[in-house]
Amino acid sequence: MYAILVYDFGEKRVAKACKFCRQYLNWVQNSVFEGELTEGQLRSVEKGLRSIMHPSEDSVLIYLMREERWMDRRSLGVRKAEPGFMI
Amino acid sequence: MYAILVYDFGEKRVAKACKFCRQYLNWVQNSVFEGELTEGQLRSVEKGLRSIMHPSEDSVLIYLMREERWMDRRSLGVRKAEPGFMI
Repeated sequence: MYAILVYDFGEKRVAKACKFCRQYLNWVQNSVFEGELTEGQLRSVEKGLRSIMHPSEDSVLIYLMREERWMDRRSLGVRKAEPGFMI
Repeated sequence: MYAILVYDFGEKRVAKACKFCRQYLNWVQNSVFEGELTEGQLRSVEKGLRSIMHPSEDSVLIYLMREERWMDRRSLGVRKAEPGFMI
């Protein structure tokens, strides 16, 4: 499935969360990652982020869809990364 | 169509961008908004954010899908807002 992940981590934990997410997904903007995940990888991502986060302070949103082609992507301003070029 | 909007604005412009986005979409997490938009509203959102942003510093990503039910939403940690309850 295709995932868009957006996190909001405290400053002390954000570098660790970023490094962790990059193992599974492509970084596309400050705190935004995208990519294909299997069910098992999704569980690993959730488990890993739970172990990094302070659950009363940090938050993560993950949007999932069966296929990437079900959504369009538009961007304004600085283009920090191009998911299609990073795979 | 259903939109997920994520921005990364400089500190001086973020409050203005947030206030603007709230006119069209529901705030769901720091710098993340969701909601239904018509084609005309999407154009207004893009135009408004372009007028607020510094294009060499700030960035906006908008993910669009025809129907909200095409995607699943998962969240970890602090739940800042519940899109379904805000409509």
